[in-house]
Amino acid sequence: MKEKLTIVKVGGAVVEDDVQLTQLLHDFSAIPGRKLLVHGGGRKATKTAERLGIETHMVNGRRITDAAMLEVVTMVYGGLVNKTLVARLQSHDINAIGLTGADAGIVLSHRRPVVDVDYGFVGDVDNVSSKTLTQLIEAGITPVLAPLTHDGEGHILNTNADTIASETAKALAIQYDVTLIFAFEKPGVLASPDDDSSVIPVITRSLFKQYQEDGTISGGMLPKIENALAAVDAGVSRVIITKSDAIDGHHGTVISSNHTTT
Amino acid sequence: MKEKLTIVKVGGAVVEDDVQLTQLLHDFSAIPGRKLLVHGGGRKATKTAERLGIETHMVNGRRITDAAMLEVVTMVYGGLVNKTLVARLQSHDINAIGLTGADAGIVLSHRRPVVDVDYGFVGDVDNVSSKTLTQLIEAGITPVLAPLTHDGEGHILNTNADTIASETAKALAIQYDVTLIFAFEKPGVLASPDDDSSVIPVITRSLFKQYQEDGTISGGMLPKIENALAAVDAGVSRVIITKSDAIDGHHGTVISSNHTTT
Repeated sequence: MKEKLTIVKVGGAVVEDDVQLTQLLHDFSAIPGRKLLVHGGGRKATKTAERLGIETHMVNGRRITDAAMLEVVTMVYGGLVNKTLVARLQSHDINAIGLTGADAGIVLSHRRPVVDVDYGFVGDVDNVSSKTLTQLIEAGITPVLAPLTHDGEGHILNTNADTIASETAKALAIQYDVTLIFAFEKPGVLASPDDDSSVIPVITRSLFKQYQEDGTISGGMLPKIENALAAVDAGVSRVIITKSDAIDGHHGTVISSNHTTT
Repeated sequence: MKEKLTIVKVGGAVVEDDVQLTQLLHDFSAIPGRKLLVHGGGRKATKTAERLGIETHMVNGRRITDAAMLEVVTMVYGGLVNKTLVARLQSHDINAIGLTGADAGIVLSHRRPVVDVDYGFVGDVDNVSSKTLTQLIEAGITPVLAPLTHDGEGHILNTNADTIASETAKALAIQYDVTLIFAFEKPGVLASPDDDSSVIPVITRSLFKQYQEDGTISGGMLPKIENALAAVDAGVSRVIITKSDAIDGHHGTVISSNHTTT
């Protein structure tokens, strides 16, 4: 039987708010067993860029990463946010290690080809190498991953944190029984967008089709669930979409291949 | 017999100059066997602080690290400089991993007590944990250390890169036959400060006393050599002070406990 591994992804809004961050670190530290944290940091990057006089351009909700912005995200994601999380986790007796995809060659990517938009130094993931991650995890270390990758040719690339989380979960699913938790601002996938008590407890592929057809799930939640189902299809045991203060695995919406999730 | 390990420390001036950096990465990659890189980044930190409207204050050549400056050095040392080095080493087929002292709890420090000067968030090293470093090195990975440590209570602290290099060398000397190379702007310890061809090939403690008494070595070189001799006394096989483009172990001044260095 595979050992359990919990992967938690938190966005920039949580790690940049001291009250939310303190709660998150407390809750993450309380997760038993093997675990891994993936973080964002977009808001802090935008603020730091602004202070440096660098304009932020977004297209379809994605950051355009020119050379100046690449320096900013490398500083903010790889340095400030990542090392702040690591130092604070250490004080919770979690032996954290902060890594980008360049470190130990963990996440190899290629620069996104220009189709309609030139996103600049943005990397689409080619491969997550599970070897070093597994060695660290088995040594009792908790990896904390920043949303940066590398192309193997000496360049750091900016990569979406949700993608890092999904791809890492898939790669580690060969070795582990992986639960992937996406922490965001809502308590889960909601049947009624304005009613936080309407969390859908479980979504399977067949249920997803049904909810999609009857209009229960729509908009920005569709690609999130498609992404989660793809992770499940690739061997991740379950994906949980939940609020950042409820990451114990018993809250939110579980996305799995069947109803009998444990 | 212990395995050989080469530790190279390079300052900010080298890593911030593209020509010098390219040469350094080439030369560092060519060092055979187990190795580890420690880097500075002070000039880049000063420039970034300036762009952010944060003033840099130095006392006795050391940076005063207030809360705003701590953010800057965490970004610049832990993020920009460290990850740039790692990504570029990866392209030289060196499986580099970039770490601060907070990562895997490698370097524990305490905030420097205020005596005459309050240096702010500056850490004096208490302990280097060699366990994870050794595991990484034995897995074929090359650690790249940023000059940041942590206090175990959730805080990053700014720590002199020379100190990180010496303390890491001492901690790893239990396991390895360590050569510690300090790369700086001169070809070695010079008998005549203005004559680059006057490199003193070997300095032992008895020779150091002699050079000190006859005035051959003076000023800022004295603490550097004291520090190197202390490392040698603590078990480091040899310390080499050399120019950043001559880190092959066959150039510069060797500081060792005896004349028969190999």
